[in-house]
Amino acid sequence: MQDISDYYRCTGKKTALVPTMGFLHKGHVSLIKKAKENNDITVVSIFVNPMQFGVNEDFDKYPRDFKKDYDICKEAGVDYIFNPEIYEMYNKSLTEVTVKEITGRLEGKFRPGHFTGVATVVLKLINAVKPHNIYLGQKDAQQNAVLKKMVSDLNADVIINICETVREENGLAMSSRNSYLTPEQKSNASILYFLLNEGRKRVLENNFEDTEAIKVEISVLLKQKHPDIELQYYEITDNDRLDNISDLKNYKGEVLISLAAKVGSTRLIDNIVFIKQ
Amino acid sequence: MQDISDYYRCTGKKTALVPTMGFLHKGHVSLIKKAKENNDITVVSIFVNPMQFGVNEDFDKYPRDFKKDYDICKEAGVDYIFNPEIYEMYNKSLTEVTVKEITGRLEGKFRPGHFTGVATVVLKLINAVKPHNIYLGQKDAQQNAVLKKMVSDLNADVIINICETVREENGLAMSSRNSYLTPEQKSNASILYFLLNEGRKRVLENNFEDTEAIKVEISVLLKQKHPDIELQYYEITDNDRLDNISDLKNYKGEVLISLAAKVGSTRLIDNIVFIKQ
Repeated sequence: MQDISDYYRCTGKKTALVPTMGFLHKGHVSLIKKAKENNDITVVSIFVNPMQFGVNEDFDKYPRDFKKDYDICKEAGVDYIFNPEIYEMYNKSLTEVTVKEITGRLEGKFRPGHFTGVATVVLKLINAVKPHNIYLGQKDAQQNAVLKKMVSDLNADVIINICETVREENGLAMSSRNSYLTPEQKSNASILYFLLNEGRKRVLENNFEDTEAIKVEISVLLKQKHPDIELQYYEITDNDRLDNISDLKNYKGEVLISLAAKVGSTRLIDNIVFIKQ
Repeated sequence: MQDISDYYRCTGKKTALVPTMGFLHKGHVSLIKKAKENNDITVVSIFVNPMQFGVNEDFDKYPRDFKKDYDICKEAGVDYIFNPEIYEMYNKSLTEVTVKEITGRLEGKFRPGHFTGVATVVLKLINAVKPHNIYLGQKDAQQNAVLKKMVSDLNADVIINICETVREENGLAMSSRNSYLTPEQKSNASILYFLLNEGRKRVLENNFEDTEAIKVEISVLLKQKHPDIELQYYEITDNDRLDNISDLKNYKGEVLISLAAKVGSTRLIDNIVFIKQ
């Protein structure tokens, strides 16, 4: 893979990497499309990374379908699929890449070690594929902040490009984990995007001194409509270090509202980003 | 630097990096010579890395002489000096690269966090300079083991080459920190290389069941000759994971004997590697 990548780089071609855990959906296809628009060669990596799953998480049952992924990549015009085995990526591996502070909040509180697993595997993938550009979906906002900081801190010669979240018609963010949902759960889960938009509305109205009051209203809204859905967090932060915005009224800049919720036994995350002026 | 490096790579040239903290001596020059023999372009990085110094260590007083280093590099035929500022290498940096297990022993016990600082900065340097080859001196045996593991684990597209330790006539390993020693201390410090060779002799005689008895004899030898020198550790390990060799008599393979000692207030390290058949 390194030789292939060097060959293209040295013939003046731009290479893109779309890192995925497979079970590709329309979100991934939109990343591939963006990659192809802005590069000469598009590589999709498919690797369900054990290091980013906690002990009680869904590594074993995480959905896999390489044949279907292959067909989707072919259809989308992908040039290379990078599909390593676990023993190739973790050969008695002892090295960990940790991004401090940013990883401690939001998802980090519920998934200890998760972002170290993500940062480590993405650096392994960057070094294996040596792309000019990486394409990631906005849905994983915190992961994106962590990876941007890692790439910048480590002088990695690659640019991270964040692309809009692709949604189902009802607003539910595309995710491989949506395959765990029953049709009814899928329908109910559209409340999450609704809650994000309700939060944005309240932030932009600018009648709230701080984020706490908004969060209370949001959880009331959820309880009225879908008391069975458990909101693990709903946070209103900046979009860089993901710090809580304390002085909301006077804050200007990018706002990230992000949430995690359990719909049945399935854990979903989503977010929106917007500018407050 | 990345553009320069890509240019050479794409014109079929091999690039070498000799990472240093400056205050160059004959050991560095021998690394540069080796790099030049096997590559087309040789880059020497000069960067006193704050992250690898503990709070009570000698970062501030670590010897620096850029003008002299520049002249040595020029004389040795170095093509590029990479000499970043601290703010360029650590711009509110939050990312840490840790190699587990190997880092906990020997130096790791006396210098907590040291190898995370080394691994992190060397990865930053690798990504900035993008060399084909890196040249390191055998003197920093544990650092070399850590960096080899890091490069392998992270799929970094670079080869680490270890070169023999260059010594003063009295056997003392070359080190920028030797500049802290008085002439008398410098003379006394030659005992360290003597102790390493005495250890090797005993290992190869193969009359010792385990390493403990050898270590006792070594510390007796030191006490007889230079009771004022404080041996912080003297370990007989394999040369890969740096694990203590428990069944010394039946062990076959590379043996690393490494030590750290305080000569006055100056802390010195040294080691030898050899094959036990």
